[in-house]
Amino acid sequence: VPKPERQLIERVRSLAEGYSRQRRTLVTGIGDDCAVLRPPAGHELLVTTDFSLEGVHFYREWHPPESVGHRCLTRGLSDIAAMGGQALACFLSLALPADLPQSWVDRFYRGLLKLADQHGVSLAGGDTAQSPGGVLADIMVIGSVPRGKAPLRGGAKPGDLIYATGVLGSGGATVRRLYAGEKVGPASVPHYFIPQPRLKVGLRLRGIASAMIDISDGLSTDLSHICEESGVGALVFSSAIPMARDATLDDVLHGGDDYELLFTSSKSVPKEIAGVAITEIGEVVERAGMWLQDERGRTKRLKAKGWEHFSHDVKV
Amino acid sequence: VPKPERQLIERVRSLAEGYSRQRRTLVTGIGDDCAVLRPPAGHELLVTTDFSLEGVHFYREWHPPESVGHRCLTRGLSDIAAMGGQALACFLSLALPADLPQSWVDRFYRGLLKLADQHGVSLAGGDTAQSPGGVLADIMVIGSVPRGKAPLRGGAKPGDLIYATGVLGSGGATVRRLYAGEKVGPASVPHYFIPQPRLKVGLRLRGIASAMIDISDGLSTDLSHICEESGVGALVFSSAIPMARDATLDDVLHGGDDYELLFTSSKSVPKEIAGVAITEIGEVVERAGMWLQDERGRTKRLKAKGWEHFSHDVKV
Repeated sequence: VPKPERQLIERVRSLAEGYSRQRRTLVTGIGDDCAVLRPPAGHELLVTTDFSLEGVHFYREWHPPESVGHRCLTRGLSDIAAMGGQALACFLSLALPADLPQSWVDRFYRGLLKLADQHGVSLAGGDTAQSPGGVLADIMVIGSVPRGKAPLRGGAKPGDLIYATGVLGSGGATVRRLYAGEKVGPASVPHYFIPQPRLKVGLRLRGIASAMIDISDGLSTDLSHICEESGVGALVFSSAIPMARDATLDDVLHGGDDYELLFTSSKSVPKEIAGVAITEIGEVVERAGMWLQDERGRTKRLKAKGWEHFSHDVKV
Repeated sequence: VPKPERQLIERVRSLAEGYSRQRRTLVTGIGDDCAVLRPPAGHELLVTTDFSLEGVHFYREWHPPESVGHRCLTRGLSDIAAMGGQALACFLSLALPADLPQSWVDRFYRGLLKLADQHGVSLAGGDTAQSPGGVLADIMVIGSVPRGKAPLRGGAKPGDLIYATGVLGSGGATVRRLYAGEKVGPASVPHYFIPQPRLKVGLRLRGIASAMIDISDGLSTDLSHICEESGVGALVFSSAIPMARDATLDDVLHGGDDYELLFTSSKSVPKEIAGVAITEIGEVVERAGMWLQDERGRTKRLKAKGWEHFSHDVKV
């Protein structure tokens, strides 16, 4: 029997109202044909959408519902961070199997709304349906950035240095451990289960980063996007990469779900922003292609083969 | 074997570029962390998201791929129309089964992009994934409206008249015929398979409509939303309702997928806008509740029981 959806709407409305503080931006939220938003004057809009599909991006057996909700929104907020933006509102389309326990749904929303609240983001609408398969979530986040100030992927220049925030490889390492049957969860690997989107860092990197992207598909794949869009190449120093505990170089290069920022700059870059370490890991070169150099100076070709978690998922 | 997704992205990019004309609004589209939009000055943003799920909103056996793509976008554009807005850009999250023929996907995009082009809307981004079940689409449309000018659901006043655009009941009637095994398609019932979102009409109703909604869940349900949000009641004259050929009164009242506009007004309303008939069908009353009156003046209670197509789907 399908759940009484009117109740679901009311529940989301009340949950969302309890959490939402950013009322100036949101003129009309859940309950009309569209949400009405009033972005800051002089800003451009940023829009991103990301699926979180059961069996593709998460398994209910592995990921607690709060983690699924949190990571669902992190995917969108991390894209806003990579554009140097502030997040304004999010929209959630959620299709649920008829036999899903209500407690799972409540806990999913709790994880999502807690993160939304931490960043002053309203849940402003979305759609609900009964799912013919597993849990299907699609998050859309709207943000804004002062006109012309978003660091795009195409701005890297030869001679720029390459930087990463935080530590890398936690996603790849944790998924390996999950596949190996280890019991890991938010307490043991918060960086994977409850990743913090780098919004404050991204904001501070406006005017500093010449190109920026978030690391969601592995360093090799995400760096290749910057190289391709900028028409440049990259040399990465493997020993300089800030690696998560338990992570291998392969996890770092080709794992996913790190939600750190990768950027290039010719300017002076702080060693830390908002408590997050910023590490120089390489340099932009003129010749197309990517290379990895070890501490003894040996260089080998680096191919983009970002590991695509449980199945295939590519952002267009 | 999953399809080469890089190819899919390139295909969408080139299809989208062939169709898109509205380049002033879209600063950066597919291929960065976010799309960057520049809405018209002095406008508020409108945002709406709608699922189109196989087995819930359509069946591949019944709906040609062009129709699924067209209807997917119509769902979003119709919400923008109901706010008196202009559509700026759309975002499509699309998860596809591994064994889906490429020709189905191409035809789906063709239907969607043709409609986008007719309304000057860019496909500005989205997400793709492999679906664990059937075809899963989530469309997001961003529009804009001059600040404070969107007719909301809550503005109806006692004494206002109630109007509908076009003809109603085509959705309900067609779905009945499909369930009965009849062969119907875009050629025989274009209004159902290729519905035209009423954007031009909605735009012209700014300043005229006191409340407006699109009729996507049946007249009874959508009218009840206006009544609830406005704190009023409604009297509908059943003989005044513009009914589609083959449609019963039940199809009109409780069927779905009509994508016409329902609005209230105390002003002078044209009989036709942009070639679409506008028909007076009732009046707003003070007492909460809805009533249906036949041509002999007999009145009975009208309950909201909008028929929820193939399964359950409620917009939050």
